[in-house]
Amino acid sequence: MKEKVVHAVQDFYPDDFSWCYGCGRLNKDGLQLRTGWDGERTITIYQPRPEHTALPGFVYGGLLGSLIDCHGTGSASLALHRDNAHELGDGEDPPRFVTASLHVDFKKPTPHGIPLKAIGHVESIHPKKWKIYTEVFAEGEICATGEVVAVVMPKNFTKR
Amino acid sequence: MKEKVVHAVQDFYPDDFSWCYGCGRLNKDGLQLRTGWDGERTITIYQPRPEHTALPGFVYGGLLGSLIDCHGTGSASLALHRDNAHELGDGEDPPRFVTASLHVDFKKPTPHGIPLKAIGHVESIHPKKWKIYTEVFAEGEICATGEVVAVVMPKNFTKR
Repeated sequence: MKEKVVHAVQDFYPDDFSWCYGCGRLNKDGLQLRTGWDGERTITIYQPRPEHTALPGFVYGGLLGSLIDCHGTGSASLALHRDNAHELGDGEDPPRFVTASLHVDFKKPTPHGIPLKAIGHVESIHPKKWKIYTEVFAEGEICATGEVVAVVMPKNFTKR
Repeated sequence: MKEKVVHAVQDFYPDDFSWCYGCGRLNKDGLQLRTGWDGERTITIYQPRPEHTALPGFVYGGLLGSLIDCHGTGSASLALHRDNAHELGDGEDPPRFVTASLHVDFKKPTPHGIPLKAIGHVESIHPKKWKIYTEVFAEGEICATGEVVAVVMPKNFTKR
């Protein structure tokens, strides 16, 4: 597994789509999650902040949900972009996805204070709809698994 | 629907169990979600912070996941406490639950800048395991629905 994501899809979203609290590079108060390819899998690496506790010593489950959520939309973007015969940085914007559903199974208490790795496997279930299966590892052990259904952002998802 | 939760279960968790990023009253950097009864339903009201955006004008889905997550564990605690013939403030600590699984269906873009209300219906599926069905409303419209399976905190969930 990688230790660092060098080429992240979130670095290439158009500015207007880069304000997500989970993964927007322009949201300075957000988590700024970054998702890239690791072979045929996708990966997001994140070390929770000190305040992201469930109990002292363990990671807050909702933070794992956010990690799985944005890892899912980022993974879908990577996959569709590649399906469209593009690679990050070739001048074409990667497609922006939103989450239709999020499912998380918490397998064991997740230790706090170390980087977490979300590793994803991406499957197309419709031209504009993808399913992302994710495992979250802490020190090599699976702490949570997730399934996200991500869809290409609909046109009504614009500023109110 | 209530406008404010007066008696919240999180106000009565023991100090050691009050550090959750989502709902711990002692976690000053957290969301400090508060869950109480509203008739036979449970309710959590939360206004997302300015940074909790998906796109400008809309709420981050992961934040809705956190709201549903902690609303779920809080609702389960309220329900089991009442099943045990206790009420908040009678001197007995309410039981602390953890999340076994979290499922969220995002129904429509959630408008930012207003209070969100999570309304829950709680069902016992085992003496120590509860299922919480939640609807999240913004200005009276359902934006997301959720299902949480919450279990009484196991003994191994203590400081590393």
